[in-house]
Amino acid sequence: MSKGLTSRKENYSQWYNDLVIKADLAEYSSVRGCMVIKPYGYAIWEKMQSVLDKMFKDTGHSNAYFPLFIPKSFLSREAAHVEGFAKECAVVTHYRLKNSPSGNGIEVDETARLEEELIIRPTSETIIWNTYKNWIQSYRDLPLLINQWANVVRWEMRTRLFLRTTEFLWQEGHTAHATKEEAIEETLKILDIYSSFARDWMALPVVRGTKTEVERFAGAVETYSIEALMQDGKALQSGTSHFLGQNFAKAFDVTFLNREGRLEHVWATSWGVSTRLMGALIMAHSDDRGLILPPKLAPIQVVIVPIYKKTEDLELISRKAAGIKKKLEQEGITVRYDDRDTNKPGWKFAEYELKGVPVRLALGPRDIENNTVEIARRDTLEKSLHPFDGIENLVSDMLEEIQSNIYKKAVDFKEKNTFRVDTYEEFREIIEKKGGFVLAHWDGTNETEEKISSETKATIRCIPLDSEKEEGLCIVTGKPSAQRVLFARAY
Amino acid sequence: MSKGLTSRKENYSQWYNDLVIKADLAEYSSVRGCMVIKPYGYAIWEKMQSVLDKMFKDTGHSNAYFPLFIPKSFLSREAAHVEGFAKECAVVTHYRLKNSPSGNGIEVDETARLEEELIIRPTSETIIWNTYKNWIQSYRDLPLLINQWANVVRWEMRTRLFLRTTEFLWQEGHTAHATKEEAIEETLKILDIYSSFARDWMALPVVRGTKTEVERFAGAVETYSIEALMQDGKALQSGTSHFLGQNFAKAFDVTFLNREGRLEHVWATSWGVSTRLMGALIMAHSDDRGLILPPKLAPIQVVIVPIYKKTEDLELISRKAAGIKKKLEQEGITVRYDDRDTNKPGWKFAEYELKGVPVRLALGPRDIENNTVEIARRDTLEKSLHPFDGIENLVSDMLEEIQSNIYKKAVDFKEKNTFRVDTYEEFREIIEKKGGFVLAHWDGTNETEEKISSETKATIRCIPLDSEKEEGLCIVTGKPSAQRVLFARAY
Repeated sequence: MSKGLTSRKENYSQWYNDLVIKADLAEYSSVRGCMVIKPYGYAIWEKMQSVLDKMFKDTGHSNAYFPLFIPKSFLSREAAHVEGFAKECAVVTHYRLKNSPSGNGIEVDETARLEEELIIRPTSETIIWNTYKNWIQSYRDLPLLINQWANVVRWEMRTRLFLRTTEFLWQEGHTAHATKEEAIEETLKILDIYSSFARDWMALPVVRGTKTEVERFAGAVETYSIEALMQDGKALQSGTSHFLGQNFAKAFDVTFLNREGRLEHVWATSWGVSTRLMGALIMAHSDDRGLILPPKLAPIQVVIVPIYKKTEDLELISRKAAGIKKKLEQEGITVRYDDRDTNKPGWKFAEYELKGVPVRLALGPRDIENNTVEIARRDTLEKSLHPFDGIENLVSDMLEEIQSNIYKKAVDFKEKNTFRVDTYEEFREIIEKKGGFVLAHWDGTNETEEKISSETKATIRCIPLDSEKEEGLCIVTGKPSAQRVLFARAY
Repeated sequence: MSKGLTSRKENYSQWYNDLVIKADLAEYSSVRGCMVIKPYGYAIWEKMQSVLDKMFKDTGHSNAYFPLFIPKSFLSREAAHVEGFAKECAVVTHYRLKNSPSGNGIEVDETARLEEELIIRPTSETIIWNTYKNWIQSYRDLPLLINQWANVVRWEMRTRLFLRTTEFLWQEGHTAHATKEEAIEETLKILDIYSSFARDWMALPVVRGTKTEVERFAGAVETYSIEALMQDGKALQSGTSHFLGQNFAKAFDVTFLNREGRLEHVWATSWGVSTRLMGALIMAHSDDRGLILPPKLAPIQVVIVPIYKKTEDLELISRKAAGIKKKLEQEGITVRYDDRDTNKPGWKFAEYELKGVPVRLALGPRDIENNTVEIARRDTLEKSLHPFDGIENLVSDMLEEIQSNIYKKAVDFKEKNTFRVDTYEEFREIIEKKGGFVLAHWDGTNETEEKISSETKATIRCIPLDSEKEEGLCIVTGKPSAQRVLFARAY
């Protein structure tokens, strides 16, 4: 449709790629699997960051910064962690380059080899717990509630913009507590922050739950996640919050004197969301014309396009537009007036549809005469004519309405595409033909989980927290099950 | 003095290290030369970031994000750049680890060797200009005004917290322009932003100027810097803004069609400030009791300490303190009420002096009776008693006064320690005995500059922009000089 965007029906995956690139969100760099986040995409990420950062601070967390590098030996300290993370990593082995003896370019100086290789952090538990060891002595030093905004590197073989890239941006929270109960409470508090952020800002309904052993974070006792449903029926894990028990405290020997004067190991959590959220945001709402952004995260909320033939018309329109812009900005709305003479209005309309600007105002000579404005909504593509007076209230209300309409659509989609299934046959048929979330009984074993996943490519996304605990029989083995779990094919 | 802080007189360098560590700003990590920025230090950096970020955005810049990795060959593309930056770099050679055959730990998988090594960015000109090549076709795409907040790595042999670390945080702006004039204007606009940020927020007077050829950024046509004077008489380069001419455009073949339809190379700038600013802030103002922070960058602007013996007194005091806190917060002031029962008031007083909290309020039972508050200023250490009513205006005014007093002190110090010198003998004596900024005539040659630097360890910090262009004779060779240049020993 718009500017050569592949339609979702034709090829969903291609549509996503086209959209990310044509809407100027990101592109691949010349470094394998690494992306460049372009200004428009980064502006959305910055809005996400600032909202999340405030939510973390309002709940008592502080930001800090830990090194990019992790000594290789640190990764082996926690037994499960090494299995999960010490695989596809970027490894620094040397610290100097020199001019090639041939005089042509530069080469690695083999005399400058590190004694111990450094790994670019794939996640920072090890370096952080090695640091916490010195920060924590007594119960007075607890809880320690720290977050870090950082880049991390995981050497992925197959990459997709925002969804899976070699380097990505994220926040990682790492907290230390005196008791198990407090650490679990923290894990759930963060899960709440993530799910309310998804709902209230991204207009994205999510399912909250715990991961199975197979899908659990390497080193965690329990992993909680939020799972969102994309328009192609695939699930996207959008954030995780881990209760780490005393695993890292034991691996790095982090103890504290409790109130009774006894030495105990500290209890831990870690949690993160990443630029992957950008992928969720893009895929959940957008259409064949381009992005649909929830107004609360849109870098430009309203665009004003002048429509004119004569220069004197433009002058009149510009004066009027400046008035509207000012009024809207007083309401806290972000407005762009696009009077570039390099492109026609039709081109601009398509461009701002592609970029997902929630509200477009068009102003022509007749509008000046009649004191009217044409308003177009990006979500429904509806156009209407309104008197100029009170336009700021109208637009302000419309932005709120768009925010809730997008959310409602996503909720409807999720409900229509969540299936309760009681036989494996039905399960396979739905996963194959419709996709979506499938709630089914499972006997709780890794074997059954792996059988289902290898036969259908659907995995257990989570054991939902918020659904009723209905008993039943496993769809594969017929063994008893305490509650339905959530299956889907996933990104 | 405070908590075992070495005094400045005794050992300035040790004082600085003690201060950074004891005030909980940063510490060395277990990775050589890399620091951990602790929450209190990071909170100051976040304030700096948010102010600078707004200044960049207000002047039309957008943020984006480019890869951490730079292919080795990119560094060789710009001839001067490779000499300056392709030396002490972290080099990624492998992308996988495996379990050691011995079963003991992990090791680098030698089969996973990269075809071309990747360098952790020491600065991003090369990867960014390689990207700009695809973003710029016509004059309509210009100017391109982009900034990035990122981590960078330079493998420094001798490191000092904040001042010189292997990994550090910074912002790097990279802009592209259609004309030379516009690029130079941008370079100077940013220099202005840096110097007004230093003055208005950091309370730090700086000298603005151009670098000599020897000190110029590798790949720049002209480097501008801001230079600040520390209390030990050494200079600290606090920010640089480079006019890159067409060097990178030519190296990466970035051309555009101008308005006349002719193909031209683009004109470029780059500019940055880093966590080094933290070092400048700490060293410029602080004393033997600890940090002195300008109120505008202090994470906690006012602390309230209750002084009590009986629990019922604490209740009364806490109620009063809550009232003060609320009033101050309504004025936009950041307040901490420290009613921890784990430490005595005297300990708290020393602690907040160490941490540089600008204003301390103490409230005891007698204050409750008399409706008074004791106010202590961190900069002058003055204490006074004030009636409770109108306290918010008093504190608000006091914060402003502290901000300007700190600035005035720094200006006085800089003026007292700036010397105009006309003979090499006098030059050597001042550099050796007093330190400070020395303004002297120089014949403009690299040879003389290098002779002075090897004999005195003083370097030309900059050729000042704002001083009168007074002619004279070089202090070493007696050859003519068009203006005095600024010498100092430097960090």
